Amino acid sequence: MIAKVKPIVDDVRTRGDAALLELTAKFDRVQLTSTVVFPPFAPASMQVAPDVRAAIDTAYVNIYKFHAAQAQDAALVVETMPGVVCSRFARPIARVGLYVPGGTAILPSTALMLGIPAQVAGCKEVVLATPPRPDGSISPEVMYVAHLVGASAVLKAGGGQAVAALAYGTETVPKVDKIFGPGNQWVTAAKMLVQNDTDALVSIDMPAGPSEVLVVADYTCNPAFVAADLLSQAEHGVDSQVVLVTVDLPLSTIDAIEVEVDRQANALSRVDILRQSIPKSIIVRTKSVEEALAFSNDYAPEHLILHLEDASARVALVENAGSVFVGPFSPESCGDYASGTNHTLPTNGYARQFSGVNTLSFQKHITSQELTSAGLKELGPVVATLADCEGLSAHANAVRIRLAASA
Amino acid sequence: MIAKVKPIVDDVRTRGDAALLELTAKFDRVQLTSTVVFPPFAPASMQVAPDVRAAIDTAYVNIYKFHAAQAQDAALVVETMPGVVCSRFARPIARVGLYVPGGTAILPSTALMLGIPAQVAGCKEVVLATPPRPDGSISPEVMYVAHLVGASAVLKAGGGQAVAALAYGTETVPKVDKIFGPGNQWVTAAKMLVQNDTDALVSIDMPAGPSEVLVVADYTCNPAFVAADLLSQAEHGVDSQVVLVTVDLPLSTIDAIEVEVDRQANALSRVDILRQSIPKSIIVRTKSVEEALAFSNDYAPEHLILHLEDASARVALVENAGSVFVGPFSPESCGDYASGTNHTLPTNGYARQFSGVNTLSFQKHITSQELTSAGLKELGPVVATLADCEGLSAHANAVRIRLAASA
Repeated sequence: MIAKVKPIVDDVRTRGDAALLELTAKFDRVQLTSTVVFPPFAPASMQVAPDVRAAIDTAYVNIYKFHAAQAQDAALVVETMPGVVCSRFARPIARVGLYVPGGTAILPSTALMLGIPAQVAGCKEVVLATPPRPDGSISPEVMYVAHLVGASAVLKAGGGQAVAALAYGTETVPKVDKIFGPGNQWVTAAKMLVQNDTDALVSIDMPAGPSEVLVVADYTCNPAFVAADLLSQAEHGVDSQVVLVTVDLPLSTIDAIEVEVDRQANALSRVDILRQSIPKSIIVRTKSVEEALAFSNDYAPEHLILHLEDASARVALVENAGSVFVGPFSPESCGDYASGTNHTLPTNGYARQFSGVNTLSFQKHITSQELTSAGLKELGPVVATLADCEGLSAHANAVRIRLAASA
Repeated sequence: MIAKVKPIVDDVRTRGDAALLELTAKFDRVQLTSTVVFPPFAPASMQVAPDVRAAIDTAYVNIYKFHAAQAQDAALVVETMPGVVCSRFARPIARVGLYVPGGTAILPSTALMLGIPAQVAGCKEVVLATPPRPDGSISPEVMYVAHLVGASAVLKAGGGQAVAALAYGTETVPKVDKIFGPGNQWVTAAKMLVQNDTDALVSIDMPAGPSEVLVVADYTCNPAFVAADLLSQAEHGVDSQVVLVTVDLPLSTIDAIEVEVDRQANALSRVDILRQSIPKSIIVRTKSVEEALAFSNDYAPEHLILHLEDASARVALVENAGSVFVGPFSPESCGDYASGTNHTLPTNGYARQFSGVNTLSFQKHITSQELTSAGLKELGPVVATLADCEGLSAHANAVRIRLAASA
C-alpha cells in the first residue's frame, strides 16, 4: 500500500497545488480552482440545523474540559543534587494538520476530537484537511467545528494527496510538523510514508486501522444494552472487529444477546453492513473477570466496554485499551461524541504502546538544567569520570575547565 | 538506507537466532553460540573500577529522581457534566527494547538514560541490546547498568539485526512493543522500517540523526567555557553539528573563543575528529537575544546552551529544543551523564514535534468514562443527535435503548 501511494505523494511534493487539484478532480470528482479556505469562514458555509449546532456546542464544552485538564502548563522542577536543578516544560507543536475523513460521510466529531486538543495546546497553525463534496464544498457541520476550534486553514483535499500537502506544503497549503487523524488505507499509508522521510520532518499520531470493540459481560448485564453496543461498532464497516467476552454467562443469556442483536439490527439504517459484520464477530467464554480481562489485555482493544458487577473497580485490571466504558449507562457512543474523552484511539493492538490522541499529542516536553558553581563542584567530578570512561575527553574538559576557573 | 537494511531485517524475521548469529559473525566479527544473557548476571561480567562504579551510582540516583518525578501515577478525573465522569490513567508499556551502541565505544550512559525511565515506568520486560566486543563479551560498565535498571535480558547484537530481533522476537529474544535508543544509520533505518510494519506491531522513540549543539553567547560569556562546549559536541563525530550564535558580540570576543577552541583542542584525545568537525561549525551573528532565540527555535537544536546574562529568564523564549543548558556552570556534559535529564534527544530539527526520551515514553495513557443513569439522561440526546447527523443509527440506538429502559 505504501508503494501504491508513493507516486501520489511524490506528485504533490514536486508539483504542489497543480497536482493537488488534478488528484482531487480524479479521486473526488470535483474540479476545484483553489484548495484552501482561510478564516474568517463565510457564515453561509457554516449553516447548521439548530439542534445539531447545540449538540456540537455541548460536545465542544465537554471535550474541551477534559483536554484542558490534561494540559501541562506548569514546569516540573527537581533539584536532583544541591545546586543541580532539572526542569521540564511543555511547548505546543507549532503547526499541525488534522485529517477529517469526508466525501459521503459527515464527521464533525472527528474535527472536534482533533481540533480541540490542538486549540488547548496552543498550536499556532492548525490546518484541517477533508475531502470536498461533489459540489466542491465542505459539510457545514465540519466548517462550523473548524471555526469553533480556531482552524487557521481548511484544505479541501483527501487521501494521500492531502497528507502529502500537509507534510511538504504547497504554494497555498502550509507545511505542518505533525499530522493527526484517521482515514482509509491511502491516508494511513501516506502518513507512514512521510513519517519516514526525514526531509519532510513530520511526525504522525499513530498508525490507524479498522475500528474495534471488546465487550465484557457478566450476569449483571442487560442483554439489550450489550447487543446495542455490539451493533454500534459493527455498523462502522464490514471490517469492524466486534468481540464479546462473557464471564461465566449461561447460554440462555448469550442467546438473549443474540436475539437482541437480530431484533435491533432490523430497525437500523445500516442493516446491510450489519448483516456482513455481525457474522464475523466472535464470542469468547471465560470463567472469571480476571480471565476475561487477561484476554482483553492481550487483544488490546480500541474500545473496551465493561458490563460487569462493580465495573469501576475492574478498571484497575485494564493494562491495554484505547478507552474504557464503565457500567451499563456508558455506551461507546458517548465517548465517540461528547462525554469528553477522545475518540481517536489506537487500533489493531497498538493500544499496547500508543495512547489515544490527547493534549500531550500536540505538545512536546523540553528539559533544562541549571547548575550553580557549587553544584558543578559536586557533580563535575562524576561527569568527568564517566566522560573519561567513554573516551570523550572534550566532555570531561568542559567540566574541568570550569572547575579550574572557579577553584 | 531502508532498502539496504531490509534484507537484514527480513533474514532475522524469518530465520531467527540462526540469522542473528550469522549476522553478528559477519558485522561484529565474533562467532557467538547464544545471543541472550538473562539475569542474574555473573558478577565477573559486571566488574567495574570503583571510581566509575561510584560515578554510575551517582548518575543513577540523579536520573532516577528526575524521571520518577515525571511518572504519572495518579489518575486524572474530570466530571465534564453532572453524572459524566471522564478519567485518564497511565500504564507501563509491557515490553521494551533498549538499543545501546557498542563495539569500540563503551556507553553506560545510554544504558542509564534508557533503562531508568523503563524501570520507573514499571515495564515488565526490558531487553537491552548492544553489539558484543571482539571477544564476545559486553563491556562490564554496560552490564553493571543493565543490572542496576533491572534489565530482564541482554541481547548481544547490534545494527539492523538487533532491531529486527527486538521487533519480531526470535527463539531466544523476547519480542518487544517499543524500541528506544540511538544508533548508526543501520539502526535508525531498521527502526523506521519496523515501525511501518503493522505485523511487527512495534513503535519507536524517534528518528535519530547526528548530534547537534547550538550555543548562544552574549558579552557575559567566558570564551573558554564557550569553546569547551563547542568542542565537546564536535568530538562526537565528523558529522556533528556545531553552531555558535552570538548576541551583539564584538569580533574580539569571537576571536577569543576561536583561540580557545584551538588551544583546548590540541590537548584532547579526539583531536583528529575535531580537526574535521570544527571547520564545519558555523557562527551566526545576531543583534539581540530575541533574534538569537528566533534563529535557535527555527533550527530546533538537540542541545541548546545559554551563555547569557540572566540566562534562566531567557528559557521562556525557547520554543523548540531537546534540552537546555542554562548559564556558565551547566555544560552539556552534565546532561549527557548525570544531572538527571535524559540525553536521548530529538535531532535533525525533530525537536519541533518530539520530546526527548522520558518516563512518559515508556507509558501510555488510557481514558475511561462512567455515566450514571441521570448523566446519560442529560448527555444522551446530544449523542443521539450527533450520531444521527453522521448517519450512524446504531450509535444513536445504543443511547436510546438505555434512555427508554430507564425512563
